[in-house]
Amino acid sequence: MIGAGQLARMTQQAAIALGIGFRVLADSAADSAALVTADVTIGDYRDYADLAAFAAECDVVTFDHEHVPLEHVEKLVASGVRIYPGSQALPFVQDKLRMRAHLGALGFPVPAWSPVESTAQVVAFAGQHGWPVVAKAASGGYDGKGVWVLASAADADALFARGGVRLYVEQHVAFSRELAALVARSPSGRSAAWPVVQTVQDDGICVEVLAPAPELAPERAEQATRLALRIADELDVVGLLAVELFEVADGVLVNELAMRPHNSGHWSIDGAVTSQFEQHLRAVLDWPLGDTAARAPHTVMVNLLGGTGPEAAELGARIPAALSDGDVRLHLYGKAVRAGRKIGHVTISGDDLVDLRARAHRATDALRGEPA
Amino acid sequence: MIGAGQLARMTQQAAIALGIGFRVLADSAADSAALVTADVTIGDYRDYADLAAFAAECDVVTFDHEHVPLEHVEKLVASGVRIYPGSQALPFVQDKLRMRAHLGALGFPVPAWSPVESTAQVVAFAGQHGWPVVAKAASGGYDGKGVWVLASAADADALFARGGVRLYVEQHVAFSRELAALVARSPSGRSAAWPVVQTVQDDGICVEVLAPAPELAPERAEQATRLALRIADELDVVGLLAVELFEVADGVLVNELAMRPHNSGHWSIDGAVTSQFEQHLRAVLDWPLGDTAARAPHTVMVNLLGGTGPEAAELGARIPAALSDGDVRLHLYGKAVRAGRKIGHVTISGDDLVDLRARAHRATDALRGEPA
Repeated sequence: MIGAGQLARMTQQAAIALGIGFRVLADSAADSAALVTADVTIGDYRDYADLAAFAAECDVVTFDHEHVPLEHVEKLVASGVRIYPGSQALPFVQDKLRMRAHLGALGFPVPAWSPVESTAQVVAFAGQHGWPVVAKAASGGYDGKGVWVLASAADADALFARGGVRLYVEQHVAFSRELAALVARSPSGRSAAWPVVQTVQDDGICVEVLAPAPELAPERAEQATRLALRIADELDVVGLLAVELFEVADGVLVNELAMRPHNSGHWSIDGAVTSQFEQHLRAVLDWPLGDTAARAPHTVMVNLLGGTGPEAAELGARIPAALSDGDVRLHLYGKAVRAGRKIGHVTISGDDLVDLRARAHRATDALRGEPA
Repeated sequence: MIGAGQLARMTQQAAIALGIGFRVLADSAADSAALVTADVTIGDYRDYADLAAFAAECDVVTFDHEHVPLEHVEKLVASGVRIYPGSQALPFVQDKLRMRAHLGALGFPVPAWSPVESTAQVVAFAGQHGWPVVAKAASGGYDGKGVWVLASAADADALFARGGVRLYVEQHVAFSRELAALVARSPSGRSAAWPVVQTVQDDGICVEVLAPAPELAPERAEQATRLALRIADELDVVGLLAVELFEVADGVLVNELAMRPHNSGHWSIDGAVTSQFEQHLRAVLDWPLGDTAARAPHTVMVNLLGGTGPEAAELGARIPAALSDGDVRLHLYGKAVRAGRKIGHVTISGDDLVDLRARAHRATDALRGEPA
């Protein structure tokens, strides 16, 4: 796996069970997955020589993130490396403009959007779709970074004054909530979908996932699942595909794609028969896919974000308080605590959603060491 | 953790989630846990200097096996090392004669037994309890090794002629089945018990575990659980305690003890809210213990034993066939395949025990690559 963040760390847990010789290409020995993996190569994912040397020791190569330069992936594929997702699928997560254009052309429901290079173009778009509009960087954004809500021409001016990124604008969708559809697909075309979940964002960062999405109409769940499976087929995705969706009055709109294990699927470690991390491995190895059924009526996943207090770093000392609820499942990433950084998550499964949410948040509050 | 077999390997998976800096003292870099752990020390668990150097780098020390010499453990404790289970508990798993004598003295139900040093003593014991009798080595036995069924004085003669081990004999218990009660206990005396399971042995090797034990009378399950919790208290066990039991007409008899994660608890990884490996870590760290409830009406665990055919080593190529049943959970230990050696296990959870058993065995048959 190229990249050694928390996604690689949790993939390592799955690889241990499956008896897979798992290695990571890490930026540093302190990376989340490098701390817990026996076979670590330190190298630069932007450097072709580092990638090629790493790939030479692997049967199959996959990613913890989507930032490997496309030309390097193309060159690896051309030299015979089995690398998933491949160079035909990857552009659609590396370049959101391309993703929007392609999904629109294929007829998938997407918000109204337009590439923009000037304030005049933003104003023209707002004239059609109303203010505010949402501006997004075509590449490199994550966790709310690379997204700006523009309320006026002055906001657009300020954004263009910063310069440096290709932008597009999108209508500000009046969604009722956000959903995510997670599917896996193998080279031989087998695919599997987990129950559609609800994601709760705060400032662009996923803070909570409810699995399955509560009171989602079955036909809408099926629509979202079919849509994700079709996107996986159309883009020839191998491995995991997460489709982030806006739920609107008459259906769903595609917001973002990710072609790797995804925060919206962390609940599956404890809450589904097969976790997204195990499934990603099974998919890229072209093994049969595992059962994606939920193991409980409700599973709640709450992200643990680094706190701001001076005692925020004393995470270890606060673990017992979080574990005093014996049903809470804790997942820490071994990352240094920084304010707002994703450093772990908890899940809890059961029958009573209101109770489960309260208990999950109590656990993360205890871990942060500050009142919620 | 001292020792780096499959128990340490599965403990590493739990340690990753809990954010624990996990290190192993391994015999070799090819040990099951050494293959998947970042922090590996190669050393000899029989050598005090190796143990002390390893312990100096740890907050808490625990075991993957019970073979560390007691005098070394005593010396580590005296030098201030937190090591669990400690030197007061460990003798009862290192020396079965001591275990039998102590449990008997405390009033726990054990089979009739006697230390023996001659055929005459065996014959005298058989005169009281009937042939056959079961001879056991006082130390070092596992997986059927160190256990002999003696049908006659001639069998006893043959055994004594081999020499070299302290022996005791036990009545040949007419049990209806074997059970195991698994509990965890922390230094501050908190304890937790999983549902009592049925274990199925073949030639002294555990081949299958049914969790919970099917159709076990609730009062008998409670008796077994209470007994295991009391033994943990009486022996001041810290960490996991597995109590292997014979179910007889009027109750249960204690067969063996283990003070570590145990084969009879492997089902808990997929089948219980908290796995035995996570719980062992929580116990030795004196953290709150996790919920031990079963997550499904039935979980079946089947051990994967190395096959005998020439193609037995080609395990990797047979994984897809085993995983064609998407509900099967696979756990491989990364060990070289040898006939009869425990190299992995599978579990499957659900409602229909007969169906689950058939499917689990189909998966291990596929992995062995030979008809059952």
